[in-house]
Amino acid sequence: MDYVYGPGRNHLFVPGPVNIPEPVLRAMNRNNEDYRSPAVPALTKTLLEDVKQIFKTTSGTPFIFPTTGTGAWESALTNTLSPGDRTVSFLIGQFSLLWIDQQQRLGFNVDVVESDWGQGANLDILEDKLAADSAHTIKAICIVHNETATGVTNNLAKVRKLLDDYRHPALLLVDGVSSICALDFRMDEWGVDVALTGSQKALSLPTGMGIVCASPKALEASKTAKSVRVFFDWNDYLKFYKLGTYWPYTPSIQLLYGLRAALDLIFEEGLDNVIARHARLGKATRLAVEAWGLKNCTQKEEWYSDTVTAVLVPPHIDGAEVVRRAWKRYNLSLGLGLNKVAGKVFRIGHLGNLNELQLLGCLAGVEMILKDVGYPVELGSGVGAASAYLQNNIPLIPSRI
Amino acid sequence: MDYVYGPGRNHLFVPGPVNIPEPVLRAMNRNNEDYRSPAVPALTKTLLEDVKQIFKTTSGTPFIFPTTGTGAWESALTNTLSPGDRTVSFLIGQFSLLWIDQQQRLGFNVDVVESDWGQGANLDILEDKLAADSAHTIKAICIVHNETATGVTNNLAKVRKLLDDYRHPALLLVDGVSSICALDFRMDEWGVDVALTGSQKALSLPTGMGIVCASPKALEASKTAKSVRVFFDWNDYLKFYKLGTYWPYTPSIQLLYGLRAALDLIFEEGLDNVIARHARLGKATRLAVEAWGLKNCTQKEEWYSDTVTAVLVPPHIDGAEVVRRAWKRYNLSLGLGLNKVAGKVFRIGHLGNLNELQLLGCLAGVEMILKDVGYPVELGSGVGAASAYLQNNIPLIPSRI
Amino acid sequence: MDYVYGPGRNHLFVPGPVNIPEPVLRAMNRNNEDYRSPAVPALTKTLLEDVKQIFKTTSGTPFIFPTTGTGAWESALTNTLSPGDRTVSFLIGQFSLLWIDQQQRLGFNVDVVESDWGQGANLDILEDKLAADSAHTIKAICIVHNETATGVTNNLAKVRKLLDDYRHPALLLVDGVSSICALDFRMDEWGVDVALTGSQKALSLPTGMGIVCASPKALEASKTAKSVRVFFDWNDYLKFYKLGTYWPYTPSIQLLYGLRAALDLIFEEGLDNVIARHARLGKATRLAVEAWGLKNCTQKEEWYSDTVTAVLVPPHIDGAEVVRRAWKRYNLSLGLGLNKVAGKVFRIGHLGNLNELQLLGCLAGVEMILKDVGYPVELGSGVGAASAYLQNNIPLIPSRI
Amino acid sequence: MDYVYGPGRNHLFVPGPVNIPEPVLRAMNRNNEDYRSPAVPALTKTLLEDVKQIFKTTSGTPFIFPTTGTGAWESALTNTLSPGDRTVSFLIGQFSLLWIDQQQRLGFNVDVVESDWGQGANLDILEDKLAADSAHTIKAICIVHNETATGVTNNLAKVRKLLDDYRHPALLLVDGVSSICALDFRMDEWGVDVALTGSQKALSLPTGMGIVCASPKALEASKTAKSVRVFFDWNDYLKFYKLGTYWPYTPSIQLLYGLRAALDLIFEEGLDNVIARHARLGKATRLAVEAWGLKNCTQKEEWYSDTVTAVLVPPHIDGAEVVRRAWKRYNLSLGLGLNKVAGKVFRIGHLGNLNELQLLGCLAGVEMILKDVGYPVELGSGVGAASAYLQNNIPLIPSRI
Repeated sequence: MDYVYGPGRNHLFVPGPVNIPEPVLRAMNRNNEDYRSPAVPALTKTLLEDVKQIFKTTSGTPFIFPTTGTGAWESALTNTLSPGDRTVSFLIGQFSLLWIDQQQRLGFNVDVVESDWGQGANLDILEDKLAADSAHTIKAICIVHNETATGVTNNLAKVRKLLDDYRHPALLLVDGVSSICALDFRMDEWGVDVALTGSQKALSLPTGMGIVCASPKALEASKTAKSVRVFFDWNDYLKFYKLGTYWPYTPSIQLLYGLRAALDLIFEEGLDNVIARHARLGKATRLAVEAWGLKNCTQKEEWYSDTVTAVLVPPHIDGAEVVRRAWKRYNLSLGLGLNKVAGKVFRIGHLGNLNELQLLGCLAGVEMILKDVGYPVELGSGVGAASAYLQNNIPLIPSRI
Repeated sequence: MDYVYGPGRNHLFVPGPVNIPEPVLRAMNRNNEDYRSPAVPALTKTLLEDVKQIFKTTSGTPFIFPTTGTGAWESALTNTLSPGDRTVSFLIGQFSLLWIDQQQRLGFNVDVVESDWGQGANLDILEDKLAADSAHTIKAICIVHNETATGVTNNLAKVRKLLDDYRHPALLLVDGVSSICALDFRMDEWGVDVALTGSQKALSLPTGMGIVCASPKALEASKTAKSVRVFFDWNDYLKFYKLGTYWPYTPSIQLLYGLRAALDLIFEEGLDNVIARHARLGKATRLAVEAWGLKNCTQKEEWYSDTVTAVLVPPHIDGAEVVRRAWKRYNLSLGLGLNKVAGKVFRIGHLGNLNELQLLGCLAGVEMILKDVGYPVELGSGVGAASAYLQNNIPLIPSRI
Repeated sequence: MDYVYGPGRNHLFVPGPVNIPEPVLRAMNRNNEDYRSPAVPALTKTLLEDVKQIFKTTSGTPFIFPTTGTGAWESALTNTLSPGDRTVSFLIGQFSLLWIDQQQRLGFNVDVVESDWGQGANLDILEDKLAADSAHTIKAICIVHNETATGVTNNLAKVRKLLDDYRHPALLLVDGVSSICALDFRMDEWGVDVALTGSQKALSLPTGMGIVCASPKALEASKTAKSVRVFFDWNDYLKFYKLGTYWPYTPSIQLLYGLRAALDLIFEEGLDNVIARHARLGKATRLAVEAWGLKNCTQKEEWYSDTVTAVLVPPHIDGAEVVRRAWKRYNLSLGLGLNKVAGKVFRIGHLGNLNELQLLGCLAGVEMILKDVGYPVELGSGVGAASAYLQNNIPLIPSRI
Repeated sequence: MDYVYGPGRNHLFVPGPVNIPEPVLRAMNRNNEDYRSPAVPALTKTLLEDVKQIFKTTSGTPFIFPTTGTGAWESALTNTLSPGDRTVSFLIGQFSLLWIDQQQRLGFNVDVVESDWGQGANLDILEDKLAADSAHTIKAICIVHNETATGVTNNLAKVRKLLDDYRHPALLLVDGVSSICALDFRMDEWGVDVALTGSQKALSLPTGMGIVCASPKALEASKTAKSVRVFFDWNDYLKFYKLGTYWPYTPSIQLLYGLRAALDLIFEEGLDNVIARHARLGKATRLAVEAWGLKNCTQKEEWYSDTVTAVLVPPHIDGAEVVRRAWKRYNLSLGLGLNKVAGKVFRIGHLGNLNELQLLGCLAGVEMILKDVGYPVELGSGVGAASAYLQNNIPLIPSRI
């Protein structure tokens, strides 16, 4: 089964799935259990309570679906909207594209606001649309917080401000798949109505849980939303929440214990420290890219992502070859460029349970690969630039002081 | 986290999730991987090929969804049917009830054929309906192969025969959640159009994979089926099958390797030997029930289930108390009676990676519990009756001869 | 590697190595660590403190050797005695025989007190020897608390009483390999000078730690003991205890964390409850043996062992065939008869992290095997007899009340 | 238990215990087994056969002791020598010192040949001693192949040549703890009589197995060697080898399966490729040290070690502070300077299942630490120097070509 085995650790730097920390692997190393025994609901109760913290919400209601991010999208949409409803959605990269595709296939009237790949959501256009929509035909704003394909982080606070400025009642639905638990995300403060993430991203678990959090307004909307839904229906969950058994169908016992361990690690480190660590890793990566004389796919600093960096390669180099070579020679997993930026970028994911020396090993690898494919990088330059920043900014590990 | 820890092993005898064998636990004890590397498609290819064997199909197309059985149901229905389509569906217990509820919520015109809980699907009524349906308004027959709530196995060969006798083109959709890999199931021979199972049942994995297998006729139907679907859409999978990358969204790396290990174990034992083992365990359980002077919820031998036995308790005894006591005193997990049979039965799941001595330990436990709750059982009687049968029928372990 | 794989769990009923509970497996599922970092000494400190509880000592000094029980024996002897020293040692079965052989090879003058296999240590002869030894030529009494080969538990309190009665200064060295953490053992109260056990016995860990606990008197003796020793020398450990780094050479990181988890489980259950559980399992086993019409190898009730039962088979039956058949047909591991009792007994180990239903599964298996080999047992009789006792005596699981 | 948890992976660069690869962790994630069943001897047989390959011997007899390197030393000495026997032993660092101490405590007449720490064994003096010893009073030459404390590799081929030149019959006993499976080692070709290693070194397992391999001449010597030994006695093993049960006492089931997996990985990579990988990692490390303007503790290139590099720090810097800081700030585990070189060096272990990017992450960390402690290193310089070499020399991963 491991016929592609290479000596030493795989260096996993795709922007998800990410490295699982040992305590989480340990927590999941277990037999199945009867999920109807008193133990599983008791565990679930703590999870539902604690998972709200990673959304920074106290009023939200979380749902832990046995699904992926794509399923979480579907749950967010079908529980709050009815076929034909107008959504405003921003196309800025492959994942926002896929979400828009889903919205269309689910029968919504999607008002697409497109930007160059490498730019953030065009909020000026949003403002125009909101200003023009005194009839409130816009039922929801759908936006990815962090576009994983291009490494672009959108400004959600500003989206909220625009909605407030225009007193617009549209729901704010946010894909936080590659942001929540890694980037600054504030569900309550920003008035996000549905936020969602996947377990295999910054939570650093295996794939298999799509975590969706609904505001009271979203829950209210779900009462009248006419989209057909069964598996992804919040209402089934809410019924079982009331019964105290929590699960309308069988959850993964292993992932429940894994989530418990993952949350414990995040809380031990401190969520804000986790976010600060991601900021350090993102900054260090960008400094390396700059030192190599390469450009970030992200066109402006305001959109820089601290969870993934898409690096533009010179025209004569194939980004996919960088990724292939990383895997074949260095046991390094980098992200491919997708769709419009296929071949033009390679991506370094720097999210999840990851530390600085892991990143520096990755950056050292990228330097060698760049040389392999004919780009004249000075070996050590990116690592040096990143290190210069990190050496000034890495805190002591609190548990070891 | 293990605040409900009891000494020794938990005896897991709910009809799912079931015991995970050590080799499968080992296979899943691993970090995440880049699912876009060449390794994961190569692994997936073997899985898709080999998983067909557990359905006994060569012409079917399997889909491995990151979901549960409920999601697999939804996938089977939405890919083959359009809103308003007439289905004939058999209500014989809690799980067929839930599937019918799903069919109704998805907008189908469900023609419900109800039986007493403890009886199998009423195929006489099916015959009448087929005979009357010369207009072919029935688009699909939906049937659970094994109703987990009552321990009733339906006769699928007969369903096929009726469809053939009346040359009826309705699709045959089968929930094989608690049958496939445990009971005799023959997708091709019985002309099943969609069959499905969940990983946490006889495959003996964690929850998280809903495996759906579609016949060529079902695939053809999916081209015109108008039910809204995105996450559960076969077509997205088929596109990626063609590309050779297989996954429209992120799979669970751990479950893929787990499925590989689970299939390897099943093939090593031999699928027919696995089925024979379940037949032995089922028979032994029923002999014990008889020895205790109790009745099987299943009303006729033709419906006896070899994966789960629902045991009727005398009126003055609460089946739920049997289950509670099992857990609180004996570290034994039994299945509750659900809905109409709540309190009236407790269930012994005897499916998955399980052997005879495990079952006998469970039966010994049930005897003590029955005594605990005031039923005058002779201790050892059920175990003795089961052993008498087993001692004559257990084969030597082939790898140890 | 698992070419002897059988479906379902292996039923492990040898008297060591025993079943490892899941929380312990989880704790050990980890990478290596630098044992010179502050983390490992901090962990070790808690282990050395807490491990004293399983010996019921406050004044003893524990040593955790990376070795087996055989190594622990050697450590006990070489640290306290000098070549030529007279020891009184009791030959009552294979393990006491091996220890005596070791004593002889290490150059001690071993005064062997032999009993029939199935009897306990002859303490009358000990009394005679003590009475006769006014010159105090006896330097140590070496005794196994529980002879694993025959299922005989010796009366240590009485040994201490004899030593006290005769005011004899001999050291009391006790092999507690198959007793400590399972049988009532009181190092301080019984004035045991060196007690030892192995990790793979009642502690329910993998093999690899020989745990030796020395009284102040034993430590004092070690200052003058002239036996050659390096690897097993307590003094090297004591030096590193003073330094606070604890380890003269590299320990197994995994076993340290495993021991932590094992002790936590024992303390959560309560050591006295653990001992009571073993008493229940031992009694239940003996009741089954009696119901089968078979004899216990142990000749008198006062010596009955609650951790292992050696069952005498009728002359026409080969005990080894019982063991072979258990493994080949039932995935059950029983203990062979060793040396003098080879073929005459088979052994049921009932120690470690084990519960009643596991034992009943084993007993049900033994019944079928007995029938297989031609012994006319009534199936269910042993299980019934054991259950009748257990059903009256099993407490509720405290964490689940 | 993980109260010293830091985010991300621990970077383990002590020269043992080393990183355990995932396939080995998986193989060890298992319950105990009866070691007297047919399965364990069958497994053991393959291990004993295959483990000879890592010693490059066909005529040697391996013994797998449940012990550490210190125990393996004791086994090598006590099985081949008698008290009072003269050994020639080279004192070149902490581990040779400890072995000499053991030799003295075991009662041998140790002729110590001392060198500066940082130099190899003085073979000129050995030659003088051999030349002078026409009476063959020297019974054994004891030498560490690789002194882990200073990063010095001795020239064993030359030792053999000297013995041959002087037709001296002394046994050649070699500590290969930090060399075997990583450095070029040829038991048969170099006429090594006893070679030994520990599982936690280049084999990349947990601590717990001391593997000793004896030449026919060593086995012959064991017949007359008078050193007292029981636990470490080869003869007990040989008896059980003949019986085909292999184990005189209980082995660790987990480590046996772990060793199987470890050997499989080594053979898959190819032992010579493993050695070449260590050569690359060693060379890269030395190039980094040079780029930092620091000196290697090893005084001449002929002694450079490819498994560990001891880096001399400038006088005003405390090597221990480098190690402390690595752990507290960077989650990096480096080796302390020991004894004579305490504070003067820190050590980078680069052995076992490790790849280039892991090493580069470590080197990037060391650069930051050096800056932290006031040494004016140019960040990126060491990584760049190492990368320049590696980028030219890393082969493609064969399984991925």
